[in-house]
Amino acid sequence: MKIDGKHYRSIWQATDNKNIHIFNQEKLPYEFEILTLSTMEQAAEAIISMKVRGAPLIGCVGAYGMAFAMSVDSSDKAIESAYQTLVKTRPTAINLQWALDRICQRLRQTPPQARVQVAYEESAIICDEDAEINHSIGLHGLEIIRELAANKAPGEAVNILTHCNAGWLATVDWGTALAPMYLAHDEGINIHVWVDETRPRNQGALTSFELGGHGVPHTLIADNAGGHLMQHGEVDMVIVGTDRVTARGDVCNKIGTYLKALAAQANNVPFFVALPSPTIDPSVWDGVKEIPIEQRNGKEQSHVQGIDTNGQRSFVNTAPTGTECGNYAFDVTPAEMVTGLITEKGVCKANNEALKAMFADIMDK
Amino acid sequence: MKIDGKHYRSIWQATDNKNIHIFNQEKLPYEFEILTLSTMEQAAEAIISMKVRGAPLIGCVGAYGMAFAMSVDSSDKAIESAYQTLVKTRPTAINLQWALDRICQRLRQTPPQARVQVAYEESAIICDEDAEINHSIGLHGLEIIRELAANKAPGEAVNILTHCNAGWLATVDWGTALAPMYLAHDEGINIHVWVDETRPRNQGALTSFELGGHGVPHTLIADNAGGHLMQHGEVDMVIVGTDRVTARGDVCNKIGTYLKALAAQANNVPFFVALPSPTIDPSVWDGVKEIPIEQRNGKEQSHVQGIDTNGQRSFVNTAPTGTECGNYAFDVTPAEMVTGLITEKGVCKANNEALKAMFADIMDK
Repeated sequence: MKIDGKHYRSIWQATDNKNIHIFNQEKLPYEFEILTLSTMEQAAEAIISMKVRGAPLIGCVGAYGMAFAMSVDSSDKAIESAYQTLVKTRPTAINLQWALDRICQRLRQTPPQARVQVAYEESAIICDEDAEINHSIGLHGLEIIRELAANKAPGEAVNILTHCNAGWLATVDWGTALAPMYLAHDEGINIHVWVDETRPRNQGALTSFELGGHGVPHTLIADNAGGHLMQHGEVDMVIVGTDRVTARGDVCNKIGTYLKALAAQANNVPFFVALPSPTIDPSVWDGVKEIPIEQRNGKEQSHVQGIDTNGQRSFVNTAPTGTECGNYAFDVTPAEMVTGLITEKGVCKANNEALKAMFADIMDK
Repeated sequence: MKIDGKHYRSIWQATDNKNIHIFNQEKLPYEFEILTLSTMEQAAEAIISMKVRGAPLIGCVGAYGMAFAMSVDSSDKAIESAYQTLVKTRPTAINLQWALDRICQRLRQTPPQARVQVAYEESAIICDEDAEINHSIGLHGLEIIRELAANKAPGEAVNILTHCNAGWLATVDWGTALAPMYLAHDEGINIHVWVDETRPRNQGALTSFELGGHGVPHTLIADNAGGHLMQHGEVDMVIVGTDRVTARGDVCNKIGTYLKALAAQANNVPFFVALPSPTIDPSVWDGVKEIPIEQRNGKEQSHVQGIDTNGQRSFVNTAPTGTECGNYAFDVTPAEMVTGLITEKGVCKANNEALKAMFADIMDK
């Protein structure tokens, strides 16, 4: 998608065909910094420090991390060692494991001297496929928005609430949850997006930055506001992304998603989850019981980033000195609360039967 | 309660017996500033700008605002004019209207030359009564915590989640939601408090400041985290304050309270609301439909206060330039989701029959 009229992807190869470029998303939207990654260690660090975020983009960075590792040592042992290093960088992101499994499978079938080239090839294919998948997600989600728009009076907007940033910055292009909104806006549907701030890391600022860049009307709100808005008919639908969908359709996503699902359920607001199929993890059934929830540094809760009165990117500590801060990164929304899963293959109910019917290849693994 | 070992109330008369002192709660907990109020205009401004917050404390400042007004002009006309000015400062806070109605009723029965003295007297009584009421709320809430503690294994804490700041800084002393926690901690019950950050104004920092000052174990969390914690059995009860309780038991409180009530209901966590009886508004039945929800300046959402890297109290703008920010101040939790109302007279079900039985004087108005 575009920034200041120029088209970007969130990850792209440098002109040397070796390094890759990413935005430093720790600084976005406050500073616009393009980073160069050259080593597996840099790729791992970029994931851990959340310089890249969003399940699909993390998978792509992980894939290139394998390519960097092969450039140093293309032995069988190096494949396993790099896999172990990279897969641990974000335990909740199933796409990362999926991308690493996929690339490692190809590498193991490839003689060591060809592994560097194959790893780069496969990484590029994973990126291109992601952009294509997200565009398809957008088209399927667009149909739902069209239906809602058809029931609106002239001049009345379709109000869509989203949590976190599941936009093009979290993927290679288009985004997952935001892809339908971009397509709806582009075809002239009157939409307005309620953007959850998404504490503690305020990814809502990224979503506002994306939507603003594309001209989509939106309002940034506290995570606390969604329940009130749904009670008062101000939300026509919710679309969020996800880091992992279980075999029964439970949805693991950014902390706070579950609270919005509860409010949607209580107020009969359709609650959709947009995802590329690699996000489905058939090895997990009960998301609440089985998915380990990452606990991150409490400083991410207490220290808030923004632009200070001197116009500089800066942090303020919002907690009284010595306060212990909790920082739970994700939560799980039980399948029963999800109206539908918007995937690249179409919209599917959030249950095992529907997932099996649409994604036999994944579910039979 | 205490700060650095010294006992304070949140509002007290100056040694001249005319002015009053308050903490500038816009700067707390980052800076400790005691303000002097001398005029009705200052009292009104302190309420509007949230230098004072919390329904009971706002009522007390409103009352002294009437005393200031009488000192300038003690005519009948001045009573009505001051009432109109002060009552508009916070439309959602019923205690303010209650305190103003009470003081104006006495003033109208008093000859003009005695009105200044009566206004000061009545204001002081309102303050003393509030402290006493909150202590009683604490004792009734303490019984619930004792019961939960009795079912805990040795060394296991009773985990209590609270939203916003309904502590002594929001009242004259003790607080409402926090009063039971102070008393439980003081009698040696092992409690731990999950403190919601409470965006957009981060009153959770005040709650952490209070609890830290008193030595009560607590963890500051994002407003998004409570659902996950309740799903995983990490919350034994919720206690929040309220700005207004309707005749059917609906609870208007800081934005985001409703989302926690939804999570509590879904996970069988008892959800209690602590309140002094003047918070009950028998003139409103359906809180969701009838209570006007204040919308405040979007800058409160985008601009976050804290201590910067130079140790100075400072603001950062977290929203991309030009982003429109929504700022809904309160929401309404339907009575059905409330386990009980903890009042100065005892714990009461959140319904019309129970409220009538316990508060006939208020409900028959």
